Amino acid sequence: MRITIVGSGNVATHISAALKNAGHRIVQVYSRNLHNAALLAYHVGAEATDDLNALTINTDLFIISVKDDAVVPTIAQLAKYGKLIAHTSGAVELLPMLQFTQQAGVFYPLQTFSKTKELNFREVPMCIEGVSEAITKTLEDLARDISNKVYRISSQQRKVLHLAAVFACNFTNHLYGVGEGLLKDSGMSFDMLRPLIAETADKIKERSPFKVQTGPAVRNDETTMAAHLQLLEQQPHLQDVYKMLSQDIIKNHNEVNGDR
Amino acid sequence: MRITIVGSGNVATHISAALKNAGHRIVQVYSRNLHNAALLAYHVGAEATDDLNALTINTDLFIISVKDDAVVPTIAQLAKYGKLIAHTSGAVELLPMLQFTQQAGVFYPLQTFSKTKELNFREVPMCIEGVSEAITKTLEDLARDISNKVYRISSQQRKVLHLAAVFACNFTNHLYGVGEGLLKDSGMSFDMLRPLIAETADKIKERSPFKVQTGPAVRNDETTMAAHLQLLEQQPHLQDVYKMLSQDIIKNHNEVNGDR
Repeated sequence: MRITIVGSGNVATHISAALKNAGHRIVQVYSRNLHNAALLAYHVGAEATDDLNALTINTDLFIISVKDDAVVPTIAQLAKYGKLIAHTSGAVELLPMLQFTQQAGVFYPLQTFSKTKELNFREVPMCIEGVSEAITKTLEDLARDISNKVYRISSQQRKVLHLAAVFACNFTNHLYGVGEGLLKDSGMSFDMLRPLIAETADKIKERSPFKVQTGPAVRNDETTMAAHLQLLEQQPHLQDVYKMLSQDIIKNHNEVNGDR
Repeated sequence: MRITIVGSGNVATHISAALKNAGHRIVQVYSRNLHNAALLAYHVGAEATDDLNALTINTDLFIISVKDDAVVPTIAQLAKYGKLIAHTSGAVELLPMLQFTQQAGVFYPLQTFSKTKELNFREVPMCIEGVSEAITKTLEDLARDISNKVYRISSQQRKVLHLAAVFACNFTNHLYGVGEGLLKDSGMSFDMLRPLIAETADKIKERSPFKVQTGPAVRNDETTMAAHLQLLEQQPHLQDVYKMLSQDIIKNHNEVNGDR
């Protein structure tokens, strides 16, 4: 397919590279910032532009990878080209696209991307939705060219996926950072914690998280929890996080046991 | 060394296997539950016992790997053998051991263990503390036989490490489970989230977590956060976790930016 990429951020960068590597042609890369457009365009052999009103019509698909708030306004501007338009957002529903175009779909990669970190796109779950079976099929086929994990996902499910991703990715990354901060304050390196983080993530590759929960909360080890809260005396809001998550673990553990 | 293992749980299982594989001899495995002692003893070619008062004196070191609350009472019972005693707990200080013995040390592996999951012990950070330089050195040498990552860590630092591990391992695992629950409730499989979890952990292998934070909170994307809280309407206590961690991420991001 001939594909126009609208956006030049982390998602746009990884998706356009994956599509190009799969043999598709990226014809243009748009960004408000021409320098950013040019950088990405160079890597995928495309033309760069910062003018949304002068895009080439010599394309089959616009992939919109801009900030969530900008997705629908961007679609409003692209509809006049009469081409298939898909966005890559976890948070934006299909419905609001339909005010502007009937050639609408979603091409959402459920992954965390950084421009400077390579990853194997074939392992990225691609969540597809289309306004019609034909559009769904087109986007699904395109997704299969770049990933082994292609799912048909409704707007409602996609919102839940995105929410679950916030818990499992954004919040966990924040907790890694809290760990790093605690170690630094006591003169220790985050390197000490890295093997534990790797193993914690590795454990659930074939297991259910609640079945491999460890630590003082799940053992209801009150002495250790009290000692930890004492250590956090100077950081009352880390104390609050500690209490809340520990209570959740205890509650959850009791419910799971009660169900047996 | 000839080593007696006191305990038969996850830590005792992995440490005794690593020590045996490094050429040390496990002479006895003690557990209150003789069946559990026998299971582990069988795997490491040791004798099993459930009698703490009739252990062999033909040993150089007792490694105590029992529940945190039981560590000091167990040391009280073992002191009479006049051998070196080390415990494997993140939470128990060296000081209370000294009421009972002067041959005291700590041999703490900073990792999450499951009996049924293999791991590369050479990557497990070993945190060593001893009452004297000689004891510290003995335990350090032993640790080097099984791990490439050996650290001298004080009791105070070890408590902080353990606390940081609760944030970076136990709490993150709980959040994985929250993600799984949200997906299940909407008819989706946890498999969809597994690549994201793997990548989130992979990202910080060479990066600092706060520098790679992604998601709606760090972007201060209020629309998406409001939509997520709406989705959690029926689970008010997940709403509380969402709000608290999002506020922490925003606060932290502002502080980091303020420092620049």
